[in-house]
Amino acid sequence: MAKSRFEYVKNFEADDSLLPHCWIVIRVDGKGFTRFSQEHGFGKPNDARALDLMDKCAKEVMQAFGDIRLAYGESDEYSFVFSKTCSLYGRRASKLVSLVTSCFTGSYVRFWGEFFPDTQLQWTPMFDGRAICYPTDAILKDYLAWRQADTHINNQYNTCFWALVKSGKSKTEAQEALQGTQTEHKNELLFSSFGINYASLPARFRKGSVVLRTKHKKLVKHLDDGTPVEREFSAPTVCHDDIIGTAFWKQHPELLA
Amino acid sequence: MAKSRFEYVKNFEADDSLLPHCWIVIRVDGKGFTRFSQEHGFGKPNDARALDLMDKCAKEVMQAFGDIRLAYGESDEYSFVFSKTCSLYGRRASKLVSLVTSCFTGSYVRFWGEFFPDTQLQWTPMFDGRAICYPTDAILKDYLAWRQADTHINNQYNTCFWALVKSGKSKTEAQEALQGTQTEHKNELLFSSFGINYASLPARFRKGSVVLRTKHKKLVKHLDDGTPVEREFSAPTVCHDDIIGTAFWKQHPELLA
Amino acid sequence: MAKSRFEYVKNFEADDSLLPHCWIVIRVDGKGFTRFSQEHGFGKPNDARALDLMDKCAKEVMQAFGDIRLAYGESDEYSFVFSKTCSLYGRRASKLVSLVTSCFTGSYVRFWGEFFPDTQLQWTPMFDGRAICYPTDAILKDYLAWRQADTHINNQYNTCFWALVKSGKSKTEAQEALQGTQTEHKNELLFSSFGINYASLPARFRKGSVVLRTKHKKLVKHLDDGTPVEREFSAPTVCHDDIIGTAFWKQHPELLA
Amino acid sequence: MAKSRFEYVKNFEADDSLLPHCWIVIRVDGKGFTRFSQEHGFGKPNDARALDLMDKCAKEVMQAFGDIRLAYGESDEYSFVFSKTCSLYGRRASKLVSLVTSCFTGSYVRFWGEFFPDTQLQWTPMFDGRAICYPTDAILKDYLAWRQADTHINNQYNTCFWALVKSGKSKTEAQEALQGTQTEHKNELLFSSFGINYASLPARFRKGSVVLRTKHKKLVKHLDDGTPVEREFSAPTVCHDDIIGTAFWKQHPELLA
Repeated sequence: MAKSRFEYVKNFEADDSLLPHCWIVIRVDGKGFTRFSQEHGFGKPNDARALDLMDKCAKEVMQAFGDIRLAYGESDEYSFVFSKTCSLYGRRASKLVSLVTSCFTGSYVRFWGEFFPDTQLQWTPMFDGRAICYPTDAILKDYLAWRQADTHINNQYNTCFWALVKSGKSKTEAQEALQGTQTEHKNELLFSSFGINYASLPARFRKGSVVLRTKHKKLVKHLDDGTPVEREFSAPTVCHDDIIGTAFWKQHPELLA
Repeated sequence: MAKSRFEYVKNFEADDSLLPHCWIVIRVDGKGFTRFSQEHGFGKPNDARALDLMDKCAKEVMQAFGDIRLAYGESDEYSFVFSKTCSLYGRRASKLVSLVTSCFTGSYVRFWGEFFPDTQLQWTPMFDGRAICYPTDAILKDYLAWRQADTHINNQYNTCFWALVKSGKSKTEAQEALQGTQTEHKNELLFSSFGINYASLPARFRKGSVVLRTKHKKLVKHLDDGTPVEREFSAPTVCHDDIIGTAFWKQHPELLA
Repeated sequence: MAKSRFEYVKNFEADDSLLPHCWIVIRVDGKGFTRFSQEHGFGKPNDARALDLMDKCAKEVMQAFGDIRLAYGESDEYSFVFSKTCSLYGRRASKLVSLVTSCFTGSYVRFWGEFFPDTQLQWTPMFDGRAICYPTDAILKDYLAWRQADTHINNQYNTCFWALVKSGKSKTEAQEALQGTQTEHKNELLFSSFGINYASLPARFRKGSVVLRTKHKKLVKHLDDGTPVEREFSAPTVCHDDIIGTAFWKQHPELLA
Repeated sequence: MAKSRFEYVKNFEADDSLLPHCWIVIRVDGKGFTRFSQEHGFGKPNDARALDLMDKCAKEVMQAFGDIRLAYGESDEYSFVFSKTCSLYGRRASKLVSLVTSCFTGSYVRFWGEFFPDTQLQWTPMFDGRAICYPTDAILKDYLAWRQADTHINNQYNTCFWALVKSGKSKTEAQEALQGTQTEHKNELLFSSFGINYASLPARFRKGSVVLRTKHKKLVKHLDDGTPVEREFSAPTVCHDDIIGTAFWKQHPELLA
């Protein structure tokens, strides 16, 4: 049973390594999550447990891959930004995409029960993944701004939509009521009809989740004389800052350094 | 908050669609499973529970993706063969690779407890994935033969190695004893020293797992007069046939049709 | 002046090698040849000198690249079929595309004067090139059939168009007269209005050029007793056969072997 | 003769568009020019006519492709730098590579007689081409520095080598004499043995050719009263500046703007 006779089939694997010195974004995105969220009783327009679970998975991914600088998530998607100089797996797209997606999905299932203790998983959730190269810091920031602007637009729409539905309108009626409306109009609708001040909704719904590595001090031991000894650890931490403006980037110069 | 100003970042996504009319193999492969299997107490040289779990995941993937014709698995890897004419997601490599890997990993975690009821998952298992195009039936068969020949070589080696270790040798001694030995010598060693007839070991260890879709009849209802009504269903089924020789392919002409 | 400090820039070159075991078609196509043909006084609808020059260039390319099995040309384009097993330059697309295009263009300029002795080149002609992989013989034949069907459609249209123009119609009138007409109608128009039997036009205009390698005997020397010694040479030869039907492929089984 | 039945073959063309917002370098490189230069009697170590012809071809390419910012050439190779924002042919690699190579080769043959009036072209010269993406200005400058450093190293070696050969050494002896020598040693050898001050050799040999677009005023007509009217034209112009240091880039800020 000669193995070598078949070895030539390895030559059919294509080299898909990503251009050096570009930021690599790996974005994972839930497959069929409209239905998934319905069948698993997600609250509308946002379910804090579901978002917590997404954030937990993102932190797992960041702990598994030290080359990730930051991550941004909203709804059922998460973007991971790998360092420009990352050389993991020779920057092969399929390796990076598959491992990040695998880690994310595995964590989603593993920690499901922690966030949905009373809800049985009906089927295996799936995420797709893709890799995108961004050659400059400015374009990378525009990518992240694009996702956060998307969060805003979707959340504002969904907040209106579900307020209308909960007030008794059918989904079709709600959809029609919102067709073509602008930002201001939606905010006014929320306030005048439902007493909701959009700007005062939780930032996590309006801004999505930004995951950064922050330093924490931890007590590691006591010396013989009782003096406590601390060590600094870095751990992924979630915030809901605005990343479209410049303030965030000025505050975190290390992210793009 | 103009969304459109940022939309240009979408143009950085590369088109990675796979050549039409080629067989697409998506192979997933456990990351760091040597350590994973140790920390989770897998039996050596083979753990039937771990293989059962792998097979279960493969069946889940095949149920999620109707374009898969067959799958082949061994140890911590599985190859899925998508039909030549598959047009799912425009044959985009990253979509196919990430979704298959995601479904596989999610299933692995989801069904872990079913196969390892007494073992807690210590960490999230991860699989990488890749897509490979094979232009002809003959080369696809060589690919599958390559994997099955690999199964044989690894299993024979591992069977000897663990027999030596269990008989009291150190891992280094076992390794040295096997260095450079041929198939015949290994079989003889197993028989003379340990009374093991290699050929009579379970086929699943020697041949790996082949997953095919087979037809099953199921009772779906009874007519008013009590006549039972059956319908035919197709379901992924595991066998451990030889796929290197021609017999298997003659028996299943539909696989490559 | 340390060279090594800059060597890292080599890593930005992407691997663009083509899938093994597929037919590789390199097609070159004249850039702006409508205007080029006008400014260099090409006869309409076909200029035999221009086609002879194209065929000459194709033969030069085939002599430079032994891996080319056959070529097919029409108007200002030529397709070169590299053997499935070709391993030239590691099957790198940019190498193959650029060298074939370079050889073709260089030959076009070099032999211009031979075919257009009285016409000065007004500017440097340019061809673009591309590489396409075809996984099976059947699809490769469909590719070639596609080009030859295109030749027929274009030539029939152009023959009608220029007959109308030469009979006094404006180009716009000629275009309108032909809009939406079928093959039969065009043939009838040619016959009834201009006495042209389309089927009896030269095959080279209707079928394009097929370049094959044929064997020729050549006298290489005389022995001392005067006996002539011949040797067999292979040389690219042009014919205008139909390659859409099966007869051609039956007659030349070596092409796809 | 249904054309549409075959149209599906177009789907096998891969999208090879280059990452947006990166500098695109197209480098053409002579194939087999060691032999080509011998058979066409090129002077050694440098042939000014051959370099003039290369520069002429580069200017032709720059006139054909307005998106080229600058070009750098040495020996039998030339690199063309397309603007980061170039959107020509959707940035498809094969289009850009093939057209630049085609234009270069066609010009080489077309203008051969102008630079080598007494030498007949023995065969069609060929150039290969490749496309490389550089994400930042700094890396692009390193690329160009890499080529110019290469020019220096090669020219210094070749100057020594041919001085030794012209002084009576065999090629093998010359090669051995130079093996492993450093820059200083080569300069000293040239000075002490041959009275050549390397730094005073023509810059074009030591630095290669940089092609920039410069503005020129041209008389376009006279007004009725005899006043001459000039218009500004931009034309590719060759210089031999150092592009490794910063002075050049400070002097030409528009190149990378």
